[in-house]
Amino acid sequence: MQIRTDLAMECQETATSLAGVSVDTIQHGSIEEVRVTVETEAAAHALGKTRGHYRTLSLADLSHASAGERMELSRLLAAALRTMLPKEGDVLAVGLGNRHMTADALGNRVLESLLITRHVRSLADDPTVGKLRGVCAAAPGVLGTTGLETAEVVKGIVEHVHPSAVIAIDALAARESCRICTTIQITDTGILPGSGVGNHRLGLTRETLGVPVIAVGVPMVVYAAVIARDALSLLLQSMGMNEEEHRQTVDQFIGQVAQHGLGDMVVTPREVDDMVGKVACIIADGINIALQSGLSEEEIRVLAHDSL
Amino acid sequence: MQIRTDLAMECQETATSLAGVSVDTIQHGSIEEVRVTVETEAAAHALGKTRGHYRTLSLADLSHASAGERMELSRLLAAALRTMLPKEGDVLAVGLGNRHMTADALGNRVLESLLITRHVRSLADDPTVGKLRGVCAAAPGVLGTTGLETAEVVKGIVEHVHPSAVIAIDALAARESCRICTTIQITDTGILPGSGVGNHRLGLTRETLGVPVIAVGVPMVVYAAVIARDALSLLLQSMGMNEEEHRQTVDQFIGQVAQHGLGDMVVTPREVDDMVGKVACIIADGINIALQSGLSEEEIRVLAHDSL
Amino acid sequence: MQIRTDLAMECQETATSLAGVSVDTIQHGSIEEVRVTVETEAAAHALGKTRGHYRTLSLADLSHASAGERMELSRLLAAALRTMLPKEGDVLAVGLGNRHMTADALGNRVLESLLITRHVRSLADDPTVGKLRGVCAAAPGVLGTTGLETAEVVKGIVEHVHPSAVIAIDALAARESCRICTTIQITDTGILPGSGVGNHRLGLTRETLGVPVIAVGVPMVVYAAVIARDALSLLLQSMGMNEEEHRQTVDQFIGQVAQHGLGDMVVTPREVDDMVGKVACIIADGINIALQSGLSEEEIRVLAHDSL
Amino acid sequence: MQIRTDLAMECQETATSLAGVSVDTIQHGSIEEVRVTVETEAAAHALGKTRGHYRTLSLADLSHASAGERMELSRLLAAALRTMLPKEGDVLAVGLGNRHMTADALGNRVLESLLITRHVRSLADDPTVGKLRGVCAAAPGVLGTTGLETAEVVKGIVEHVHPSAVIAIDALAARESCRICTTIQITDTGILPGSGVGNHRLGLTRETLGVPVIAVGVPMVVYAAVIARDALSLLLQSMGMNEEEHRQTVDQFIGQVAQHGLGDMVVTPREVDDMVGKVACIIADGINIALQSGLSEEEIRVLAHDSL
Repeated sequence: MQIRTDLAMECQETATSLAGVSVDTIQHGSIEEVRVTVETEAAAHALGKTRGHYRTLSLADLSHASAGERMELSRLLAAALRTMLPKEGDVLAVGLGNRHMTADALGNRVLESLLITRHVRSLADDPTVGKLRGVCAAAPGVLGTTGLETAEVVKGIVEHVHPSAVIAIDALAARESCRICTTIQITDTGILPGSGVGNHRLGLTRETLGVPVIAVGVPMVVYAAVIARDALSLLLQSMGMNEEEHRQTVDQFIGQVAQHGLGDMVVTPREVDDMVGKVACIIADGINIALQSGLSEEEIRVLAHDSL
Repeated sequence: MQIRTDLAMECQETATSLAGVSVDTIQHGSIEEVRVTVETEAAAHALGKTRGHYRTLSLADLSHASAGERMELSRLLAAALRTMLPKEGDVLAVGLGNRHMTADALGNRVLESLLITRHVRSLADDPTVGKLRGVCAAAPGVLGTTGLETAEVVKGIVEHVHPSAVIAIDALAARESCRICTTIQITDTGILPGSGVGNHRLGLTRETLGVPVIAVGVPMVVYAAVIARDALSLLLQSMGMNEEEHRQTVDQFIGQVAQHGLGDMVVTPREVDDMVGKVACIIADGINIALQSGLSEEEIRVLAHDSL
Repeated sequence: MQIRTDLAMECQETATSLAGVSVDTIQHGSIEEVRVTVETEAAAHALGKTRGHYRTLSLADLSHASAGERMELSRLLAAALRTMLPKEGDVLAVGLGNRHMTADALGNRVLESLLITRHVRSLADDPTVGKLRGVCAAAPGVLGTTGLETAEVVKGIVEHVHPSAVIAIDALAARESCRICTTIQITDTGILPGSGVGNHRLGLTRETLGVPVIAVGVPMVVYAAVIARDALSLLLQSMGMNEEEHRQTVDQFIGQVAQHGLGDMVVTPREVDDMVGKVACIIADGINIALQSGLSEEEIRVLAHDSL
Repeated sequence: MQIRTDLAMECQETATSLAGVSVDTIQHGSIEEVRVTVETEAAAHALGKTRGHYRTLSLADLSHASAGERMELSRLLAAALRTMLPKEGDVLAVGLGNRHMTADALGNRVLESLLITRHVRSLADDPTVGKLRGVCAAAPGVLGTTGLETAEVVKGIVEHVHPSAVIAIDALAARESCRICTTIQITDTGILPGSGVGNHRLGLTRETLGVPVIAVGVPMVVYAAVIARDALSLLLQSMGMNEEEHRQTVDQFIGQVAQHGLGDMVVTPREVDDMVGKVACIIADGINIALQSGLSEEEIRVLAHDSL
């Protein structure tokens, strides 16, 4: 069974010993930044991750983060985005996922606090208009409620709008439950098929869209089967048994578990609704700061959080 | 000043005396159906309406309609749609307007109760799958919150999905406040630029999308300037004055009113939220009945109203 | 460690061998009904459940249930409610839980489709008014977003409204993940402290409110620690080890798991948003059928699903 | 016909010439503050307003207000609230109106950004807890969707929670359309029967609740009949006719208009959804600043706008 994770940093253990992968860790006060670069195809294959740059920003206790820590996270996110975004041109923000499902609503929630500016730059009566970079946004919904593949919808929009880049915001699946809502991943590899809480069937990448795609993601779930496997490993350890010897038993068992309905079960914190709201604001602030360099942080905060 | 209405039937007075326009009225119990056909370009020009077929279904007191009357409305809507839709092929339903604004949320509300089937027809485990016509749905949002023109988004989707037809659901502006939430218009002319509560800047028509576009609309607002003009006309009448003589005064006055901020004001019933929910259900039922001829009305009702 | 479940039927194994507990199982086509009556205080103590009547209605594959099966579920729910409700008098429906959190939104979702009638019975212009039983509804929200205890809010309303009974709808925690969204429990014991997805701190019972309290609940989550424990038990079994011998190891281990953040993690199906919508409709229909005996099922369905 | 307004300042013309009424106007940059005090019963009767203090803060073009202007509005609102609130004790914020109706959703929208603290003051692990004043919140909904009188629900809560004061936030009806979303009224007279967009049937006042009730309101609608009357007055003027001479005709005519369905019609700006979001944020910030004097404005802004 494939243990699924959308976080490059969770492949870190493997990564550090691999040729063609560089891993740097930087501590900014209570926030840890990990920069993973997958440089070769061989390393990409070994890691199960596409070649490209991955940055993660982690804050252990995001729920109780101070105002200062949240602002610092937004600034670090903005800095990471600036290294991946083209310097000029309109940006299309895509909020992936299902707005009716709390753990998958991150993308939609971020859009609610983004400064949407593409259509107002021609208005003469707005004094701030001259300073704004063009931003537009789409929330394509999910296959189950639209009958449409997300990738097809976004492709259609990109072909008509011709943005200089796409920023795709998505809820991720992680390997460890402690990652949920505490880690933000920024990558220039885009959204890969099979990733995300909703298992996107097609990807959103530079190859498919023709423009750079920067993905911003936060783990919102861990698949229940992953939890079960971890519990088993720990148990075997605590019983003094060698996991390798029993691997077949464990694999077989997890296979059964998956078949018996647990396969589609996901694990989330009970307070996920509150956490997704907090992290969506941090991400929206970070994107706004990265794109609107003509506005102060205070102006951004007041302008962005004014409407549903 | 142009008195704005999106309802062909409100041009009826003019229409009945015009060559190239046919108007038929049919009474189905308490429901009135008006069929307007604009046959010539000359008539279209005189009327300010595109050539094509327009049907309106009206029920004076929709808020207090009985269950039977509502079902009858859905059935008449389905019958009207069937005369305009191709017999086969996937259908893309587009919910226009702003879901955060009650009077403009009709399109989004209808989508919530549509049977979305395009993606499930290949699933083997659903016994009803064989009977379903493929339906997908998109809610492109409005320029103000997305920075994207609705027409560009829909065009992109149509180019990738290749539906046999588009059904666009929209909130309309009417001439008379008594039309609000009491009249449903179905037309094969699509959505014209400048129409709808939100004043779509570009249209959705067979010409722009390359497939038939059937528009289903319900008046949700009357512009305040229209109300003011009507009030004036009535007043002049009741004072025994000739309106024609004072037309210049009235026009000038309405121009002033529009300039002083009333121009963007709209008039709605206080209970518009309740009414939009009721009419959205009637329309969704009607579209479902028109498209899913393999399901009974009862099956449709139970299957459709099961999720947010 | 206490294995938490809000379902009386999950205590069934124990229950069947206990004096003072009666368990009856009735099969209605694909729907299984289990009636548990806890008759004595001794049995209540042994079971960890209050004295009273518990009925559960289960349908294994609710997601793919046919229209007929759903309607049958609503009818059986109505029948169960009628055995517990007073014959006359206004009823206050209370939707417990957090409407912003999918798995905890069941109560709020049910209220959206309830026929609210208490205020319209005096209106002369509605032909159906004479037939209606008075129903009012409250969604008190959760402590985390209101700063108020649910029980205090409900108590205040009951003291002013004087209903003949309260129906409280709530999302439950279960023992087995296969129960999620497949089982509806109806009980005359009310809502107990510590129950529900959100762990209500105070209860809603006949003792606290002074009127009969009928609770309608559906499991929406299983605590992650429960899943881990089950996985361990199965593993030990499949490795041919005696669970009893290793109980201390297992307990110690689960204790560790709970401490390391898994304690507040819950397991839900990925499609929980869709499932909660379906089951909310079934419950609303059931309550409407139970309370509005003067209306036909079809009238109820059309009247109830007309607004957000 | 009674011309309805919930704004004391719109009675200003009358007010300035009345004994027992004081009116002061203060200009704060682009923001105008009007302080009306109704001191005697005779003045209250003449004005159709209860005795008490009324403050209005107005900014002509709120939609295009700068970040600085918005913050200044919040600060002035906080200052006004502090003159009316008790210095200590828990505060219950009540969001009146219907969250499903844009123009009536102000109260609910404000609650979304309020700092709710009553339940967290006992938590040891939050470093900010010591500084917080206890705030709880209730959104009782409207009679049409709950079957409950707002006043009864709030009374029940107050009796159990014993707050030192209630702050009730409500959408108002105004006399002039230019007031919509541009004026905030703060008054210590509470909410009076018959006021608000939804025409509250019972009031929320110190007399009915037993604690001080401070009402914060913003005009969101003008009744259509008011617009019609104004249009007529202006027309008569522009036609050189004496309004007094024709008053009977006008009154009779407006009576007819009201009877013909316009009576329940309201006028709102098309962009009311966007405007209500902006003004809700300004009000929430103002209340948070007034109540949480231990937190900086920046801390409040970051903490408050983090969740739905």
